[in-house]
Amino acid sequence: MINKDKNNTPVKLSSKHLLGIENLNSDEMLNLIERSDHFANLITKDRNQINTNNFSSILSGKTIINLFFESSTRTRVSFEVACKKLGGSVLNISVSGSSVKKGETLIDTATTLNAMNPDILVIRHHAAGAPLLLSKFIDASVINAGDGRHEHPTQALLDALTIKRRFGKIAGLNISICGDIANSRVARSNMYLLGSLGANLCLVSPSTLLPSKIENFGFPIFNDLEEGIHNADIVMMLRLQKERFQGKEIPSQHEYYNLFGLDNKKLKKSAPNALIMHPGPMNRGVEIDSITADDDERSLITTQVEMGVATRMACLEAIIQNRVL
Amino acid sequence: MINKDKNNTPVKLSSKHLLGIENLNSDEMLNLIERSDHFANLITKDRNQINTNNFSSILSGKTIINLFFESSTRTRVSFEVACKKLGGSVLNISVSGSSVKKGETLIDTATTLNAMNPDILVIRHHAAGAPLLLSKFIDASVINAGDGRHEHPTQALLDALTIKRRFGKIAGLNISICGDIANSRVARSNMYLLGSLGANLCLVSPSTLLPSKIENFGFPIFNDLEEGIHNADIVMMLRLQKERFQGKEIPSQHEYYNLFGLDNKKLKKSAPNALIMHPGPMNRGVEIDSITADDDERSLITTQVEMGVATRMACLEAIIQNRVL
Amino acid sequence: MINKDKNNTPVKLSSKHLLGIENLNSDEMLNLIERSDHFANLITKDRNQINTNNFSSILSGKTIINLFFESSTRTRVSFEVACKKLGGSVLNISVSGSSVKKGETLIDTATTLNAMNPDILVIRHHAAGAPLLLSKFIDASVINAGDGRHEHPTQALLDALTIKRRFGKIAGLNISICGDIANSRVARSNMYLLGSLGANLCLVSPSTLLPSKIENFGFPIFNDLEEGIHNADIVMMLRLQKERFQGKEIPSQHEYYNLFGLDNKKLKKSAPNALIMHPGPMNRGVEIDSITADDDERSLITTQVEMGVATRMACLEAIIQNRVL
Repeated sequence: MINKDKNNTPVKLSSKHLLGIENLNSDEMLNLIERSDHFANLITKDRNQINTNNFSSILSGKTIINLFFESSTRTRVSFEVACKKLGGSVLNISVSGSSVKKGETLIDTATTLNAMNPDILVIRHHAAGAPLLLSKFIDASVINAGDGRHEHPTQALLDALTIKRRFGKIAGLNISICGDIANSRVARSNMYLLGSLGANLCLVSPSTLLPSKIENFGFPIFNDLEEGIHNADIVMMLRLQKERFQGKEIPSQHEYYNLFGLDNKKLKKSAPNALIMHPGPMNRGVEIDSITADDDERSLITTQVEMGVATRMACLEAIIQNRVL
Repeated sequence: MINKDKNNTPVKLSSKHLLGIENLNSDEMLNLIERSDHFANLITKDRNQINTNNFSSILSGKTIINLFFESSTRTRVSFEVACKKLGGSVLNISVSGSSVKKGETLIDTATTLNAMNPDILVIRHHAAGAPLLLSKFIDASVINAGDGRHEHPTQALLDALTIKRRFGKIAGLNISICGDIANSRVARSNMYLLGSLGANLCLVSPSTLLPSKIENFGFPIFNDLEEGIHNADIVMMLRLQKERFQGKEIPSQHEYYNLFGLDNKKLKKSAPNALIMHPGPMNRGVEIDSITADDDERSLITTQVEMGVATRMACLEAIIQNRVL
Repeated sequence: MINKDKNNTPVKLSSKHLLGIENLNSDEMLNLIERSDHFANLITKDRNQINTNNFSSILSGKTIINLFFESSTRTRVSFEVACKKLGGSVLNISVSGSSVKKGETLIDTATTLNAMNPDILVIRHHAAGAPLLLSKFIDASVINAGDGRHEHPTQALLDALTIKRRFGKIAGLNISICGDIANSRVARSNMYLLGSLGANLCLVSPSTLLPSKIENFGFPIFNDLEEGIHNADIVMMLRLQKERFQGKEIPSQHEYYNLFGLDNKKLKKSAPNALIMHPGPMNRGVEIDSITADDDERSLITTQVEMGVATRMACLEAIIQNRVL
């Protein structure tokens, strides 16, 4: 059930962890998006005043560890800013400075960090399932900040918030998710989230970049970009995750761009006011043309990043409430 | 002399630095362990309440620099958490982001950092003696967080605290330190500490992994693990420090495991309730078997890490008191 | 116009960014130096008392991002300490942990960080002009912490402060800038700064290490060190920036040291009480001899680093004032 006065109440989750969108029910999804919206409004309000801060005690005295096994600017910094805005203390650990080099197992690393008594462990890892594994060995709550090709739940939530604030709704919108779906945890989390919330999703990708059993999701699949974005309200482009390629998934980046790269010409096939999204970082000239990406009228890409802090605030708050109660 | 009301008083050290256990007298050792125990109790108490913090002003307004020339998770984070719990400000500098790449000397780095007026410099360095060298060139107090094959005093103190809390004493316990003694600063610090406090130490190692003149310590030496842990109350396993090897110290890891790796079968030769320690990070399947390492009944390994924060709090407090008085 | 009660007033700058000394007028330069002097005095005073802090609210509630694309100890830490002394919050981002590895453009990185709503972005980048480019795409104020061979304005300001505090003036002093001028952003910023403030500058360098059109600055140029430092009050040595070399600029480091390395013998050609400066990190035995560098009587090198924090405090304050008013 959705909170009545939803904006003013921290979200209650049934789990102590946030491992994936798949584990949330639609009320939890909606409540998290509403609460993120509330924080986004507070941030804007705060920026226009001087030195006010309306939410600085939620994580007071709490310690969050950012444990990143893959490099990241936006996600790591976004969690750090969100945590500090809520009054919490952040410890950053990146793989290059860690004991992983010494051959320590993931579980040993987790146990070690657990002994520091953090309240929340935010983890990004190249292996799908790493956050789940960790959650079984530590007392802290675990937030998945991206695990292999599996999920990236806070990215999907901020995408949904971006859409909600722009269109006023999610249900009924035509959303085309386009590109390297096989290697995209963002796509997977968004399929669970936007699908559950009633969007009309379709997937657009060369067949070599589709994961096996993708048809089980039940979304229409297109191998042609212009066909796939026909009538789309939102064209969500994905990063070509070359670092996760296992073979020759595409003939060349140039070829890929010609067929699956979004530019203003191809965009004409979508709905007249269709908006563009991308989780970043972009490969300009590979999956998207710079002119299209930087079109202030139609690109929501910068807004997506802006929504990241508010979304992580709502998630951190929900998780910490679960620990206190 | 031991403080009467020792738990409630910061420890007084004769030196402004903490460079090694070798430089402490037994009263200083005991007082640091007692004070660490006090902080460990406060941390536990604090965790069971909400947002209380009984020790947050000890390092208020003080700056600690964590200067790590070797990668580290547990020690770096442990010092950072300890410092923050005491209300201090932490600056992290790891070698990969520093001017060392530009060919700056250690002393120039120290002088540079000194000019920032830190109160305490926590340093880990691959060269034995680096903290001592630095202490001569800077105004800040220096804490050795591990220098080459020399000392790692806070690790030994937390090991002693772990033992004290479990056995109620250190004197008279049979403790076998086993493995790569030649390359272990942990072993050296523990020989000084546990030896001074009256434990019956013995060393277990292949002769290729014993340092020269080790016999001067006067501890019994065994080249056979089962023989060396006979009747041990504590079996302290050491990490095989392959990164410090200078030649072919062992025929193979497999061979080493067969002869010197601790498993439940070999452990039967120790006292019936013998407990297991390891400073981490572990090479599972090299110096210790996973089943043995993860045995909740007998393994103190997680407790060791937990004691790290309390121990570093006591050390930071002792060092800062010396500067203020 | 110079502030009357200049020490007690934050500096007003005409720009919202600090991209280079070239963009400042002499009043702005002088005011920044005076205000830095004020902070340097406060820091000294603060150190002699316990737990006082007279300037902790200037950056209260503000977020500064340190974005470093080149490794750095002194500059990064100096900005971090300065920011924290002023009560601000610091986010450190180094290139090795960032999305640059994933091929993100500089502008996308900036846009991403901008979405976090920082107040000030401190950037070091290997490409000249990167801070200027960023300043056009983000709302935050930009402080250049070194860009390629272009400028390093806060280094020049701290150099000027060091000189001012020692000599009581800058105008009229004979200052020889010596060494790898082509690759030195420090030299360039100091030519603008010390030149504008009335110092008698001259440049000393092998012709292969002089930038093109250097004669347009109008300073005397010498290809012989002893000749160039004749009568100098200050001999400012530059780091040989081998990492920026494009070819065989020097026959060998040994040869370079013989001709352009400063030692006590060559130093005899300067004014009798001439003082030595170096922006660090030093290549000892390349551009400067250790005995000369470490001569407490004549070397200002440590003082330069000490002045870094005060100077960055003045700059951060000036920039933030511009945003609030």
